[in-house]
Amino acid sequence: MTATATQHRIDTYPTRNNGEVKVMPREDAVVWGSASDGPLDQATLDGYDAKGYLSIDRLVSDDEVAEFHRELERLSKDPEVRADERCVIEASSQEVRSVFDVHRISPVFKRIANDPRVVDRARQLLGSDVYIHQSRVNFKPGFEGKEFMWHSDFETWHAEDGMPAPRAVSISISMTDNYSYNGPLMIMPGSHREYVSCDGATPEDNYLKSLVMQGAGTPSKQILTEFYDRYGIDVLEGQAGGAVMFDSNCMHASNGNVTPFPRSNVFIVFNSVENTIEEPYAAAKPRPEFAGSTDFTPAGQP
Amino acid sequence: MTATATQHRIDTYPTRNNGEVKVMPREDAVVWGSASDGPLDQATLDGYDAKGYLSIDRLVSDDEVAEFHRELERLSKDPEVRADERCVIEASSQEVRSVFDVHRISPVFKRIANDPRVVDRARQLLGSDVYIHQSRVNFKPGFEGKEFMWHSDFETWHAEDGMPAPRAVSISISMTDNYSYNGPLMIMPGSHREYVSCDGATPEDNYLKSLVMQGAGTPSKQILTEFYDRYGIDVLEGQAGGAVMFDSNCMHASNGNVTPFPRSNVFIVFNSVENTIEEPYAAAKPRPEFAGSTDFTPAGQP
Repeated sequence: MTATATQHRIDTYPTRNNGEVKVMPREDAVVWGSASDGPLDQATLDGYDAKGYLSIDRLVSDDEVAEFHRELERLSKDPEVRADERCVIEASSQEVRSVFDVHRISPVFKRIANDPRVVDRARQLLGSDVYIHQSRVNFKPGFEGKEFMWHSDFETWHAEDGMPAPRAVSISISMTDNYSYNGPLMIMPGSHREYVSCDGATPEDNYLKSLVMQGAGTPSKQILTEFYDRYGIDVLEGQAGGAVMFDSNCMHASNGNVTPFPRSNVFIVFNSVENTIEEPYAAAKPRPEFAGSTDFTPAGQP
Repeated sequence: MTATATQHRIDTYPTRNNGEVKVMPREDAVVWGSASDGPLDQATLDGYDAKGYLSIDRLVSDDEVAEFHRELERLSKDPEVRADERCVIEASSQEVRSVFDVHRISPVFKRIANDPRVVDRARQLLGSDVYIHQSRVNFKPGFEGKEFMWHSDFETWHAEDGMPAPRAVSISISMTDNYSYNGPLMIMPGSHREYVSCDGATPEDNYLKSLVMQGAGTPSKQILTEFYDRYGIDVLEGQAGGAVMFDSNCMHASNGNVTPFPRSNVFIVFNSVENTIEEPYAAAKPRPEFAGSTDFTPAGQP
């Protein structure tokens, strides 16, 4: 897209316009495919449409979970990975908290990110081929697991990565059991139907901070309180090997974790190939490749 | 007790001995009264004996809860209360987080702390008259409610207040609904049967810090992990107006709270009149009166 074209494009989801904060109805569909596309049945699609997420009790085997742990362990010890900007290391403990771009860095995570169990579901929800917008493995330790404040991923992907519409889905595959007490994913069910524009402008290189903490892209307390009154909160418990798929515009968060029980997961974002990213809608320059990929090759191809 | 007598007393629950950290079986009973004393029945007493806590679905009425909120509001605005060292104010927001000694400061909280619904249960559990060792009202706001690390209250009360044995019970009366997501009380059920001595020595005026954060009196991560494997975690959900009573030696904690939903409660500690406090077991001087009362007048007397 040329600079002039970018300037004149219509922005259905404006945000970070320095002060204008509002809640707008979502313009786009949530479910783009149908039950006949499989593997998700009509009831599951309807649930996803209404709540903005779906849970899968058992997506991968215990052996696969064990393999993921070994691979995360291996990556965490690899000096080359640790030195890479795609690796987030906690300053005080020197422990690895996240590794981004794992579908490129690691053969193990590349395989699961292209596995039919994952890709077919994403394809069905988005009604088209899908590509990987972002991937990562997260490790939230016991005793000191940090909280993550309420946000819609799409708001950031739109503002900072130039994703036109919320036609993207995230899958979080649990590598540990999720209890209510170890900082699991919390979603406001139904919140994906409303788009919240955020205050302020995007600071330069915001991603360097926002990968570990948050500033721009966080809705106001007042709006979050209204959303809470309207939608409530679902706490997503579930066993290791299970997964949650959630719409890119879900309002979600997680609490900290003082329990001895850690929490880790594989996280992959699929975007529709009909929704590929352009220039950022509210940032001076796009985030790096590992945060918002420009490789639109469909996932799951042989 | 004279200085010599203090020096020679036998300490069944040693702690903060600069380095010696161990787990010991509890020497004392948990339930001292019997079902015939009422109002708690045998099954409830057995549950308390085994788990170290009991829940009461409905202890006070909605009107009483509303009255507690108004009273907390009033105290939070009173300049005299705010200036008092018994009032804990969060530095950045200037919001009141806790008011201690509310059974002395406030007629409303004095009444509930001496109410038969509360006192009769405490008396039955401890098998004697009881007095108020400490009282407070806590307010944990939405969005930024802080976590509280795992600890046994008795370890602190023994070390810093000179409480001889774990013959004390806390009651937490909920002024808000407790969901798994708004930082509720978490207890390791059964942990009250073991006593964990802690590392290090008590810093002078430790209470000034430990009322808002923790240092001395926190068990090691290794012991907490072993406890978690042995006992697991119960998350204490429940409605406003309900209550939890828990043994002074329960290992308990609470997570932070990023949800919009706040959490507040009235908290009263009853100690047996046969277990009144002496010189601290592991501190240079006792904490102030509002943290460990030396008024042993039985509660609930007309």
